[in-house]
Amino acid sequence: MNHRVLFARIPKGVPVPEDFGFDSVPVPSPADGQFLSRTLWLSLDPYYRNVMKGNQLYADRLQPGDPMVGETVAEIVESKHPDFRPGEIVVVRNGWQEFALSDGKGVAKVDPALAPPSTALGVLGMPGLTGYAGLVYLGEPKPGETVVVSAATGPVGSTVGQVARLVGARAVGIAGSADKCRYAVEELGYAACVNYREGDLREQLKQACPRGIDVYFDNVAGDTLAAVLTRLALGARVILCGMIEAYSMDKPPAGPWLGPVVGARATMKGLVVYDWIHKQEEQRRVVGDWIRQGQFRYREDIAEGIASAPEAFCRLMRGENFGKSLVRVSAA
Amino acid sequence: MNHRVLFARIPKGVPVPEDFGFDSVPVPSPADGQFLSRTLWLSLDPYYRNVMKGNQLYADRLQPGDPMVGETVAEIVESKHPDFRPGEIVVVRNGWQEFALSDGKGVAKVDPALAPPSTALGVLGMPGLTGYAGLVYLGEPKPGETVVVSAATGPVGSTVGQVARLVGARAVGIAGSADKCRYAVEELGYAACVNYREGDLREQLKQACPRGIDVYFDNVAGDTLAAVLTRLALGARVILCGMIEAYSMDKPPAGPWLGPVVGARATMKGLVVYDWIHKQEEQRRVVGDWIRQGQFRYREDIAEGIASAPEAFCRLMRGENFGKSLVRVSAA
Repeated sequence: MNHRVLFARIPKGVPVPEDFGFDSVPVPSPADGQFLSRTLWLSLDPYYRNVMKGNQLYADRLQPGDPMVGETVAEIVESKHPDFRPGEIVVVRNGWQEFALSDGKGVAKVDPALAPPSTALGVLGMPGLTGYAGLVYLGEPKPGETVVVSAATGPVGSTVGQVARLVGARAVGIAGSADKCRYAVEELGYAACVNYREGDLREQLKQACPRGIDVYFDNVAGDTLAAVLTRLALGARVILCGMIEAYSMDKPPAGPWLGPVVGARATMKGLVVYDWIHKQEEQRRVVGDWIRQGQFRYREDIAEGIASAPEAFCRLMRGENFGKSLVRVSAA
Repeated sequence: MNHRVLFARIPKGVPVPEDFGFDSVPVPSPADGQFLSRTLWLSLDPYYRNVMKGNQLYADRLQPGDPMVGETVAEIVESKHPDFRPGEIVVVRNGWQEFALSDGKGVAKVDPALAPPSTALGVLGMPGLTGYAGLVYLGEPKPGETVVVSAATGPVGSTVGQVARLVGARAVGIAGSADKCRYAVEELGYAACVNYREGDLREQLKQACPRGIDVYFDNVAGDTLAAVLTRLALGARVILCGMIEAYSMDKPPAGPWLGPVVGARATMKGLVVYDWIHKQEEQRRVVGDWIRQGQFRYREDIAEGIASAPEAFCRLMRGENFGKSLVRVSAA
């Protein structure tokens, strides 16, 4: 049988497990031009919350009772497609289920000899590309500049912080617990990391960034973005990427007062990772080399079994994950 | 006697005439290295409201009882400065008074044969440079693109709209009355102009900008900025320049929801005219030529006599001016 997690209803606010359902259906058989794969890893990403409310930015359209959509790493078990063979590992949008058919479109093969396959969903996948391309090509950090990133230990943020360090900038993180801040400094090499749940964020940023903030990579919007804007250095670049708080709201909240953007002659840029697919090979090569040389680390927050996906996703949306959120659906 | 307008107190909200005072003092005499000039034109600019609340962006510091500061065009009446002679016309920061001394620093001479001297405070002065440099160098409009500007008939906005048209873009204005909108289309050559006081601004923008907004030059912030963001085209550039509503507030208001900036992969840039002084000669030459060729128009909103300055400034801050706000302090 194929165990699946279903979209049950549009969440009210931050998602709860009751927004999902479960069922089991027979494992399907591939037709000509298709392959069947077994899901190994399911990626959990905040943007799924937007898909659940029908945000037009995404191609997916969910009706109640549909299996949840999402990126996965899977192993091909049966193939009637000329380009794919049983035993191959692929990145494929199987969604939240144990088995799925594919016609091969948009599917990428993964070489498990180069890196653990789960990294194709995190540090060497979309989140890694988001942080890398956004920082390098929109942020354009210079040696000695101060680069600040929120959600500093997540898959996007930890990429931004480590790339900043490895191109000679000074990385300062913003995270939501003392544990995460300690990990950011001790394991990821941030020069400093401030805990936004503890004390005045503006004052903490002033201490951590005495020459102001040259680049800010925003993964959260809200009060954090407003606080950072007040500490921008002249000519600062602000990359707008994630707005996780707002994903759980029916109506978008107001944004930050933009007066400091004028005073700092700053530039704010919207980042959508799909514009940067042409940099994915570069990102995998550069970051892959840094990982093999021991200069770049990553962390995964793993839930076990497809049934654990709803609760793991809700934890992610509450900011309680620590590292890239994954569900191990079955062992390789 | 020298009649002066004084700073009396920090306004509460939108300024009222009672925030100013008057006095008369003897006309001073220049010492060695100084000249005395008679004010012809006083420029009224919204940023004075920020100076009145002690905003740190400006060099001026006002104490109650001080003469109000501000840019003027003046005629030299007596000089002990080697570089300035009686009868010369200059742009000088005389403030809100009929006579003032200067040591010549930061003073620019005006050739009255080239253009009416008052234009050195408007279309060929700081407001003109703001609109020109901001649009050309931050907005980078391309032929056929849609350029939207708020406060479309003011000295900055009318420059933006006309430069946009003259570089082959499609100019769309936002203004606060039917009269202003008619003037924008019929006299300034905007393709369309929407009245933000009349009907739903988003819907009006949708009609006026069917292919979205490629460049937005923002002079007002607030709800107008929020509405424009929802209509941005892919790759749009937003120039943040004026925030007139907020100048009259004690605490900055919240800003617009920035989600659409991400979706449109847009860029927002803060503009401060003092960064663009090196483009002033270019702007005067280019726009001056257009004016002489009859392709570029400007409008002045003139109050008579120094005693009318407080009320004229309050009208400006209520958005009731129509054209560049000036006080004719004395005839040339």
